Amino acid sequence: MKALLVVAHGSRRAESNDEIRQLTACLERQAEGAFGDVRCAFLELAEPSIPDGLRGAIRAGASEVVVVPYFLSAGRHVVSDIPAELETVRREYPDINIRLAPYLGASAGLLDLLLLQARSG
Amino acid sequence: MKALLVVAHGSRRAESNDEIRQLTACLERQAEGAFGDVRCAFLELAEPSIPDGLRGAIRAGASEVVVVPYFLSAGRHVVSDIPAELETVRREYPDINIRLAPYLGASAGLLDLLLLQARSG
Repeated sequence: MKALLVVAHGSRRAESNDEIRQLTACLERQAEGAFGDVRCAFLELAEPSIPDGLRGAIRAGASEVVVVPYFLSAGRHVVSDIPAELETVRREYPDINIRLAPYLGASAGLLDLLLLQARSG
Repeated sequence: MKALLVVAHGSRRAESNDEIRQLTACLERQAEGAFGDVRCAFLELAEPSIPDGLRGAIRAGASEVVVVPYFLSAGRHVVSDIPAELETVRREYPDINIRLAPYLGASAGLLDLLLLQARSG
């Protein structure tokens, strides 16, 4: 089974973390079964951690986990911290295919969304 | 003239700030003249600041500035800090229409982009 893990930064503000959880639930509906398990994890300040999120997906039966960083720029978190967290779990489960997808900010469609937001503002 | 100001958080990593500047340049091309002036500003850690970005757009001739927060969740920065920075400049230029657009994370199209990233990962 193929799982999707959305990784966000995490916030001291509970509402921001809940926003990520709601987005993940919507994503699961929108994915229409393309991923057998869709969940989120947080780099810091909220639970579950990235390793715990990965372990959860694996325990739910995933043999493959695609990790999408819900980040806008390729800062230290995207370049170093998230890959390091994935590596920890890869060593625990060498048979599971854990792949890091491009971070959200690398998406070509973002410009269109920004312009839409600007026009609605 | 109507200007667009993209507001990002700002990073200690120069490449991340440059990424925002490049995105802003692409946005200007993609906007195809819908905004007479397109620039970016940073909440912290990089220049220009939000007030300086707004002042720059106004000095370039903007009578109207739409501010789009390049943020993914409605944390303290989006809810309080950015509105407070706008208020400072509104007091300096009461005749200029400075409007805050919804932050990027509020965009309905984000889910589709996330799924695209996940599928390419």
